[in-house]
Amino acid sequence: MLLIGNELLSGRTRESNLHYIATYLSSKGVRVAEARVIPDIHQRIADTVNEVRKEHDYVFTTGGIGPTHDDITAESIALAFDVPLVENETIANRIKKRTAPASTLVNRLRMARVPQGASLIENLTGGPQGFYLENVYVMAGIPSVLRAMLPTIDITVGEPLHSCSLEVALGESHIAHQLDQVQQDFPTIEVGSYPFVRDGNIGTSVVFRGTEIEQLSVAFDSTKKVLLQLGTRPTEETFDWDSS
Amino acid sequence: MLLIGNELLSGRTRESNLHYIATYLSSKGVRVAEARVIPDIHQRIADTVNEVRKEHDYVFTTGGIGPTHDDITAESIALAFDVPLVENETIANRIKKRTAPASTLVNRLRMARVPQGASLIENLTGGPQGFYLENVYVMAGIPSVLRAMLPTIDITVGEPLHSCSLEVALGESHIAHQLDQVQQDFPTIEVGSYPFVRDGNIGTSVVFRGTEIEQLSVAFDSTKKVLLQLGTRPTEETFDWDSS
Repeated sequence: MLLIGNELLSGRTRESNLHYIATYLSSKGVRVAEARVIPDIHQRIADTVNEVRKEHDYVFTTGGIGPTHDDITAESIALAFDVPLVENETIANRIKKRTAPASTLVNRLRMARVPQGASLIENLTGGPQGFYLENVYVMAGIPSVLRAMLPTIDITVGEPLHSCSLEVALGESHIAHQLDQVQQDFPTIEVGSYPFVRDGNIGTSVVFRGTEIEQLSVAFDSTKKVLLQLGTRPTEETFDWDSS
Repeated sequence: MLLIGNELLSGRTRESNLHYIATYLSSKGVRVAEARVIPDIHQRIADTVNEVRKEHDYVFTTGGIGPTHDDITAESIALAFDVPLVENETIANRIKKRTAPASTLVNRLRMARVPQGASLIENLTGGPQGFYLENVYVMAGIPSVLRAMLPTIDITVGEPLHSCSLEVALGESHIAHQLDQVQQDFPTIEVGSYPFVRDGNIGTSVVFRGTEIEQLSVAFDSTKKVLLQLGTRPTEETFDWDSS
C-alpha cells in the first residue's frame, strides 16, 4: 500500500485508510506486506511505485487524484510506467454530467486524466473513477470514496486468514515464555502478544493467525491449558473463522 | 519513520503513532520524509533500517521492544548494524526494581537487550528505556510509552515549519485554477488543498506551509483577495506561527 500525501507526513491529516484496507484485504486472503506513506513528489512516487510493483502481487495507492495542482498521483504513475497521460472518455463523460461553470469543469477534468493503457476502478459514489495499470491500483484518499472503490476491485483471493484470540488479566511478561513455546510448537501459525490497559488493569491479548482453522484451534487449546496451569483463566475468547 | 508490527498490517491494530510523531517533528522543524509500516520479520526490519538510515538524517522506529517472542526489533537493529545484542545494565536495573516472579523477570529482561554501542532514550513512564544507535531511534509502539520517550530525545532543530490556512464553502474544483496560480507565484511555500464535508456541506481547506512567515502571510492575503474576487469569503482563517 502506498498512502500518498504531504498532509499525512506533516501531521495535518491523520492517516485513516490503512486500517480499513488492511482489514478488507486480510478478509480476502491477501496479506499486506508493507505500507508506505510518501509525499507528493513526482519522482518519489514514480520510483516507489516501480520498486514495489516488482516485489508484490498488488500495489494499492490512495490519495492525490483530485482536481487541484497538488493532486499529482496520475501524472506520477504515468511517469513510473513511462506512458503519456491521456483523457479517459468514460471518466470525462461522468464529470460532464454534473453541471458546473466552465472553469470548474476544466479543473474537474483533471480527474479524467489517466496513464495510457489504464483500466478503470468503479467509484460507487458516482464520482470520477479510479484506475489501474498492470498490478497498480490507484484510488482516492478521501475515506468515503476509497470505500466506494476498493470493494469493486476483483482481487484474486488467496487462502483466507483466520484468527482467534484470548485475553488474560496478566501483563505479557508473565506469559512470555509460555507464548514463545506455543509459537515454537506451531510454526505455521502466527502467535501475537498485545498488551493493553483497560479500566486501569493490565492485560494481554494473545492472537493466533493462520490459514488452517484446525491448527489454530489446537494452538488455542494448548495455550489455554498452559494458562490454566499458571492459574489464569482467559477473560475473553474470540474466534473469527468466517472471514473469506 | 518505521512503524513495526504485523498487527498494523493485518488490520488487528489501528496505527496511531504516525500522526503524533509527524505533528511533533514538524513543530521541531524536522520534516518527515516518509513512513513505512513493516512486519515483524528480522531481515525485513534490518534491510529497511539499512536502506533508510543512509537516506535520512533521522530514523525513528516504533514497536517490537516488549517482553514477548514477537518483539524482535532490538535483535533486528543489531542485525542491521552487525553488532551483538547485549544486556544493558541501566535498563536491567530499572526492570529489577519492580518485584516479580523469577520467570516474569526473565521475560522482562528481554527488554534490557540492546545492540552493542547503543545509547538510551529515557522513558518517562519509569518503564524500560528505548535506545538509539547512530541516527536510528528505537521506541515503544504503545502510544502512551512512545509519548514518554520521543520528547526526551535531543533533536537538532531545523527551521521550524509554520502554517496558516483558510476554509471556503466551495468544492476544491471551483478554486483549483486559482490555487495553482498561487502555488506558481510562491514556489518556496507549499499550498495544499483539502476537501471536506461538514454538516452535509462541501468545503475546501487551503493550507500554506513554509519556513518564512512573511511569505506565508503574503500568499495567504493574495489567495484571500482572489477568492473575494470570486465572491467567496473564507469561513475560517487560522495561523500557526508559534510552533517551535
